[in-house]
Amino acid sequence: MKRVRIVRHQSGQPPRSLLDSVAGEEPLEIRVDSRPIAVVMRTPGHDEELAVGFLVSEGLVTRREQVRAVRPNPRNRTGNSVDVLLDPEVKIDFSRLTRHVFASSSCGLCGAASISAVRRQFPAPVDRLELTAAQVLALPAALRSGQTEFSSTGGLHAAALIRSGGRLGPVREDIGRHNAVDKLLGRALLDGQMPLAATGLMVSGRVSFEIVQKALSGGIGLIVAVSAPSSLAVEFARKNGQTLIGFLREGRFNVYAGEVKDRLA
Amino acid sequence: MKRVRIVRHQSGQPPRSLLDSVAGEEPLEIRVDSRPIAVVMRTPGHDEELAVGFLVSEGLVTRREQVRAVRPNPRNRTGNSVDVLLDPEVKIDFSRLTRHVFASSSCGLCGAASISAVRRQFPAPVDRLELTAAQVLALPAALRSGQTEFSSTGGLHAAALIRSGGRLGPVREDIGRHNAVDKLLGRALLDGQMPLAATGLMVSGRVSFEIVQKALSGGIGLIVAVSAPSSLAVEFARKNGQTLIGFLREGRFNVYAGEVKDRLA
Repeated sequence: MKRVRIVRHQSGQPPRSLLDSVAGEEPLEIRVDSRPIAVVMRTPGHDEELAVGFLVSEGLVTRREQVRAVRPNPRNRTGNSVDVLLDPEVKIDFSRLTRHVFASSSCGLCGAASISAVRRQFPAPVDRLELTAAQVLALPAALRSGQTEFSSTGGLHAAALIRSGGRLGPVREDIGRHNAVDKLLGRALLDGQMPLAATGLMVSGRVSFEIVQKALSGGIGLIVAVSAPSSLAVEFARKNGQTLIGFLREGRFNVYAGEVKDRLA
Repeated sequence: MKRVRIVRHQSGQPPRSLLDSVAGEEPLEIRVDSRPIAVVMRTPGHDEELAVGFLVSEGLVTRREQVRAVRPNPRNRTGNSVDVLLDPEVKIDFSRLTRHVFASSSCGLCGAASISAVRRQFPAPVDRLELTAAQVLALPAALRSGQTEFSSTGGLHAAALIRSGGRLGPVREDIGRHNAVDKLLGRALLDGQMPLAATGLMVSGRVSFEIVQKALSGGIGLIVAVSAPSSLAVEFARKNGQTLIGFLREGRFNVYAGEVKDRLA
């Protein structure tokens, strides 16, 4: 959990700056016998358990005796790298691992061979869509009306592009929140609209770092979410000049990065 | 969306068999110029968009002209493989891709070089925990009482192991639902409890295929979720002899695989 300064917009009140709590999100590098095998996005805490559990899920270890030690990587000062030392009896095919490893993170980030690979280089958005506070408030209902009845009851994640004036494009739905966004990006590219100008991204759930990075890959400078962003999503959006709005409920929303210029009536 | 036969338990009523809708989840293999580069778990539909959007997110394509064609893989009859043909001008370092590719799925499954790699081989649980219907109903409150106030308001996923009689072990929380489960598995292994016998897994949210597979990796034969499972989670649990309970709310729950023997008062 991290504290970040936000601006809260609420009907009938002037926008108010305050400190809010967001879920912590940081990359964790998992190393086996000093070799990095995966990076997962996680909430810090119980990192040794996470590293070992990752190996269990991968089918690499099954018994206590196979793990000689698990501890923070002594050469890493960020606290985001863990060393697992295995018994010499345990044979791991590293070439298979680095190709086949998969994420244990709902953020979906994995397989990057080092933490530096987490951040990709995309240019900052050139033309950031600006919405009025009233237009922001109208987005959730517009998204729901574009969802199937099934997904609006919570079975699927939904996402849509936001055009000028707060109009929503077609809604895409998926069990994976990242897939719903990729479907939008793919459609936009196939339609010859890439990079997107003056376009926002609306998502039905929460916002992890990777969602904000995906938006940036398409040139999107405004992300609006019904639920809250992670700490790294906020940090990434600020760094790249994106507006990030979350916790969008009846009559209120929070601005985590960038700004909404007017106020709610 | 898929229809599956379930048994619904509801207070004051006998258990009732009925058809229910669950979110579709199937692997999609993304191929570039006939080479598999990733497998993502997705809800079928708009697969060409998803494949192209994945390449956009990866920073591999940025403009329409770079994509010559995108179409179902003609040699694959499952409908779960898509071919993207790029302009010869686009250079992709495949060796980098297969190592660094990351998931665009909240299910977190990625980097597997073929669909067959999605399913891992773990032995079926030897000793399946059985709970009474009343014990099942008491689990959500027990999980919430083990969560921090922050996570119980929706900021983080939570998971805990279920012991005999429905007692919960320590709760682990994470922004990634899979991480919370991995933390539990890691703790259990470090405590010398692996493979787990007569143990269940309780999770705060939904259940994808990968959560059920992670449970199996630890020998867990009972998965209980507050929200609904995906189609593949149901299929996988049935195939491996696991009990899968979901949509656990005040006074009711659904049994998607296996059975709960008694009935609610």
